[in-house]
Amino acid sequence: MLVTPTLAKVRAKIHQFIYGPVGERIILGLIILNSIVLGLETSPAAVTWAGGLITGLDKLFLGLFVLEMVLKIASDPRVFFRNGWDIFDLIIIALSVFPYQGHLSMLRALRIARVLRLVSVAPRLRVVVESIIKSLPSLGWVSALLAVIFYIFAVLGTTVFGQVFPDWFGSIPASLYTLFQILTLESWSMGIARPVLAEFPHAYLFFVPFIFLSSFVILNVFIAIIVNYLSQVSNQVEKTKDQPPNEIVVAIERLTTEILALKKQVEK
Amino acid sequence: MLVTPTLAKVRAKIHQFIYGPVGERIILGLIILNSIVLGLETSPAAVTWAGGLITGLDKLFLGLFVLEMVLKIASDPRVFFRNGWDIFDLIIIALSVFPYQGHLSMLRALRIARVLRLVSVAPRLRVVVESIIKSLPSLGWVSALLAVIFYIFAVLGTTVFGQVFPDWFGSIPASLYTLFQILTLESWSMGIARPVLAEFPHAYLFFVPFIFLSSFVILNVFIAIIVNYLSQVSNQVEKTKDQPPNEIVVAIERLTTEILALKKQVEK
Amino acid sequence: MLVTPTLAKVRAKIHQFIYGPVGERIILGLIILNSIVLGLETSPAAVTWAGGLITGLDKLFLGLFVLEMVLKIASDPRVFFRNGWDIFDLIIIALSVFPYQGHLSMLRALRIARVLRLVSVAPRLRVVVESIIKSLPSLGWVSALLAVIFYIFAVLGTTVFGQVFPDWFGSIPASLYTLFQILTLESWSMGIARPVLAEFPHAYLFFVPFIFLSSFVILNVFIAIIVNYLSQVSNQVEKTKDQPPNEIVVAIERLTTEILALKKQVEK
Amino acid sequence: MLVTPTLAKVRAKIHQFIYGPVGERIILGLIILNSIVLGLETSPAAVTWAGGLITGLDKLFLGLFVLEMVLKIASDPRVFFRNGWDIFDLIIIALSVFPYQGHLSMLRALRIARVLRLVSVAPRLRVVVESIIKSLPSLGWVSALLAVIFYIFAVLGTTVFGQVFPDWFGSIPASLYTLFQILTLESWSMGIARPVLAEFPHAYLFFVPFIFLSSFVILNVFIAIIVNYLSQVSNQVEKTKDQPPNEIVVAIERLTTEILALKKQVEK
Repeated sequence: MLVTPTLAKVRAKIHQFIYGPVGERIILGLIILNSIVLGLETSPAAVTWAGGLITGLDKLFLGLFVLEMVLKIASDPRVFFRNGWDIFDLIIIALSVFPYQGHLSMLRALRIARVLRLVSVAPRLRVVVESIIKSLPSLGWVSALLAVIFYIFAVLGTTVFGQVFPDWFGSIPASLYTLFQILTLESWSMGIARPVLAEFPHAYLFFVPFIFLSSFVILNVFIAIIVNYLSQVSNQVEKTKDQPPNEIVVAIERLTTEILALKKQVEK
Repeated sequence: MLVTPTLAKVRAKIHQFIYGPVGERIILGLIILNSIVLGLETSPAAVTWAGGLITGLDKLFLGLFVLEMVLKIASDPRVFFRNGWDIFDLIIIALSVFPYQGHLSMLRALRIARVLRLVSVAPRLRVVVESIIKSLPSLGWVSALLAVIFYIFAVLGTTVFGQVFPDWFGSIPASLYTLFQILTLESWSMGIARPVLAEFPHAYLFFVPFIFLSSFVILNVFIAIIVNYLSQVSNQVEKTKDQPPNEIVVAIERLTTEILALKKQVEK
Repeated sequence: MLVTPTLAKVRAKIHQFIYGPVGERIILGLIILNSIVLGLETSPAAVTWAGGLITGLDKLFLGLFVLEMVLKIASDPRVFFRNGWDIFDLIIIALSVFPYQGHLSMLRALRIARVLRLVSVAPRLRVVVESIIKSLPSLGWVSALLAVIFYIFAVLGTTVFGQVFPDWFGSIPASLYTLFQILTLESWSMGIARPVLAEFPHAYLFFVPFIFLSSFVILNVFIAIIVNYLSQVSNQVEKTKDQPPNEIVVAIERLTTEILALKKQVEK
Repeated sequence: MLVTPTLAKVRAKIHQFIYGPVGERIILGLIILNSIVLGLETSPAAVTWAGGLITGLDKLFLGLFVLEMVLKIASDPRVFFRNGWDIFDLIIIALSVFPYQGHLSMLRALRIARVLRLVSVAPRLRVVVESIIKSLPSLGWVSALLAVIFYIFAVLGTTVFGQVFPDWFGSIPASLYTLFQILTLESWSMGIARPVLAEFPHAYLFFVPFIFLSSFVILNVFIAIIVNYLSQVSNQVEKTKDQPPNEIVVAIERLTTEILALKKQVEK
C-alpha cells in the first residue's frame, strides 16, 4: 500500500492529537469513568436498577479503547511498539477483548485491570512505577538467596511434616505457601508451629531458624532498596559538590599561566 | 460601629494577654484539667460519686474555651482567621458546642477532641505535627498508586469471592476493609486466605500478589519519608560544608592579586 | 571516727582491687553463676534433686554481692554515689535483700533482675545501653503526641464501646491496653474490630484512623532514631573530611609567603 | 609416595578443569538437577511412577559430588582446606553420605542441604552471603543485650506463670519460645497475654515492658545494620571525593615548584 502525502498528513494529525494533552485528558477521563462503571457492576442494587446501561457503557468504553489502540498503532506503529507503556496498554485491552467462556469465564473479572491504565496515562504515576521498577534489579541476588532458603525449607517441611499435616505441608506448593505465611509472621506460632510441635517436639529447629534466616534476608532486601535510593540521592548531591573543586583547579591553572608569563618576563 | 481609641487599646491588651505566655499557660492548664475530667466521665464509679460536679466542670471548661475563642476573635479577627492553629481550635470548640440529639447523640463523644488542643497550645508538639504534615506531600503519588491497587483488587475480590464470602468481600467497601486488614498482615492467611482457598483453589493468585504489591508500595512510602528527612538533614550539612572550598577560593584570589602586583613591578 | 593513714591505705587498696580488672572479672563470674542458679531454681527436677544446695548457693551469692556493695561504698562513697551504674547495682541488690512477705512474696521473682548486673559489669554492654539511652530524648515530643492520640481514642472507645465490650473497652486502662494491642496490629481486625463492627457498623471510623495515625507517628519515631544515628555518623565523617581542605589552605598560605618574599626581592 | 612430574601435571590439569568455568558450570547444572530430583521425591505420585529412577538419580548425583570432592582435595589439598566455601561443600556432602539409621533416619531429610551448594557455586550469591555475614559482627553486643532481656523475662515468666500455664511458661525453654513468639508480635495479646491477664491481673507489667524493651533493642539491631551498610557506601564515596583535593594539591605543588624556580632566577 502506497502512503500518499495526504494519508501521511492525516496520520501525523491523529498521532499529534491522540498523544497530545487533549487526547491524554480524554483518555484519562474515559478510564476513570470506566473504573467507576466496573465498580458499579459489583453492586447487585446498581445491576438490578440499571444493569443494561452499565453493561452497555462498559462495552462502549471498551470499544473506545480498542479504537484508541487502532488509531495509535495506525498513526505510527514504530513509535507504538517501541514504547513499553503503549504495549502495556495493548495487552490490557487485548485481555479485556478476549472472549472468555466455559470455566475461563471467571477471568472476565480481569477487565478491572483496565484501571491500571491510569498509571500509563498519568505521567506522575508512571514516574513512580518506573522508579520502583528501577529499584528491582538491586533485589535480584538477594531474592535468589531467599528462593534457595524457601526451596530447602519447603522440601524439608514436606518430607518431615507432610504426612501428619497435609493441609500445611502436604506438597511443595502447599509448604511454600505456608512458609510465605510464616515469613509474614501471620499466626506462625499459635496457628502452625505449636500444633506441629505437639507432634514433632524438635520442630522448633525448623521454624525458628527459618524465621531468623528469612527475616534477615528480607531485612537485607529492604536495606538494598534504601541504600539504592540514598546512593541515587547522594550521587546528585556529589555532582553539585564537584563544582567548587573544579573551579579551584581552574583558578590554580589560571594562576600557573600568570606565573609562567611572569617567569618569561623575568627571563628576558 | 466606630472603634474608639479606648476600645482599640482594650482589644490590644486582651490580644497581648491571651496570646502571651501567661494566657497560654492558663489555657494549657485548663485543657489538661478538662482532659482529666473527660476521662473521669468514663468511670461509672466517678460518675455515681460526683456526676454532677463532673458535668458541671465540663460545662464550665467549655464555657471558658468559648470565652477564649470570643476574646481571640474579638481582639483581632484578622490574626485569628489567618492562623491555621486558631481555626483548628475554633472547629474543635464548635464541635463541642453543637447540640447533638437523637441518633447523633453518640457524636457527643467527640468532645474528647478538645484534648487535641494540647497540640495547638504546646509549641513543641506543634513543631512535631507540622514536620509530619510537611512530609505528607512526598507520599502523594505513591499513595495514588496504592489506591489504584486497592481499587483493582477490591473490584476483583467482590466479583469473584463476593457471593461465597459476603462478610469479607460482599461489597467494595467490605473488600477494601478486608484488603486493609490483609495489608496489615493481620490473620490474612489463617483468617481469610485459607478459608477462601478451600473454595477457590487458585485464590492464592489473588492474595500473594496483593501482599507483594502492597508491601512493596508501602515500603516505597516509608523510603520516600526517610529520604525526604535525610535530604533535609544533608542539605543543612552541605551548607556548612561549602564554606572551606570558599576559603580556598578566597585564598587563591588573594594569591592572584599578589602575583599580578608582582608582574606589574617586574614589568616596570 | 578518725581516718588513720593506715585505714585510708586499706580503703584505697580495696577500691583498687574491687574496681580493677581482677575484681571485675570475679564479679562477672559470680553474676553468671548466680544467673544459672536462678535459672535452675525454675526447674522442679533440679529443685527436688538439689533444692537445698540451690537455695544455699543463691543466698551465698547474694551475701557476696552485699559484701561487694559494702566494700565499694566503704572504700570511696563519693565515687560510688556519683556513678550511675554503681547506684543501679545498689538498687538491684537492695530489691533482692528486701524481705517480701504475704502477697508481696511474688515479687521475690524480681531477684532475677540481678542478671541485669551483667550490663553494668560488661563495658561493651554498658556502651550499647548508654547509646540506646542517649537516643531516647529524640523520641520525647513524638511520644507525647502518641500519648495524646492514645488518650483521645481510649476515652472515645470507653465512652462508645465500653458497655457492649467491657473486656476490651470497659475502662480507660482496658482501652489503652486494647489500643496498644491494635498498635502492634495483633488480631486487631479478626479479634477486635470485626466483632465491634457487627454491633457498631461505623466503628471502622474508629479503628482505621487510629491505625493510620499511630502507625504514622511510630514511623516518625523510627525515623527520628535513624536520623539521629546517621547524623552522629555523618558528623564524624565531616570531621575527617575537613582535613584535606585545611591542608590545601596551608599549602596556599605557604605559597603566598613565598610570593611575598619574591616580591620583596624584586622590589630591591 | 613420590610425586612424579607426570602426576603433578595431571593434578594441575584436574585442578584447572574442576575449578575452571566449564567445571563450575557442570557442577552448577548437577546441583540444579539434583535439587529438582530431591523435590520430586516429596511427591507421592512421582515416587509411585518412577521411584526407582529418582532414588537412582539421587545416588548418582551424590556419587558425582563425592567424586568432585575427592578430585578437588586430591588435586591440591592446600587450596581446598584454606577455602571456606570448599570446606562448606565438604561438610554438606559428608552430611549426605552419613548412613542415618534408627531414629536418626529423619535426618536423611538434611540431604536437601545440598541445594545450599548453589550459593557456594554461584559467585554472585556468594558475594551476597559474604556481605550478609560481614554485617553480623555489628550485631554482637546488641544481641547479647537481647539475650540478657530474654533470659530475665524467661526466668520471671517461668517462676510466676509456670504452674498455671505449663504449655507456654512451664520451663525456661518453653518460656524462651513463647517470648520469641511475643517478640514477633504473633497472637501475643489475644493468644497469650489476655488469658494470662485473666489469672494474673498485673501480668501486663510483664508483657508490655517486654514488648517495649525487645522491640526497641531489635530496632537498634536494624539501625546497626543500616548504619553499617551506609557507612560502607559513604566510605567508597569519600574515596572518590578525595581525588579532586589531591589534584588540587598536585596543582599547588606544581605552582610552588614554578615559583621557587622563578625566585632562583630573580635572585641571579
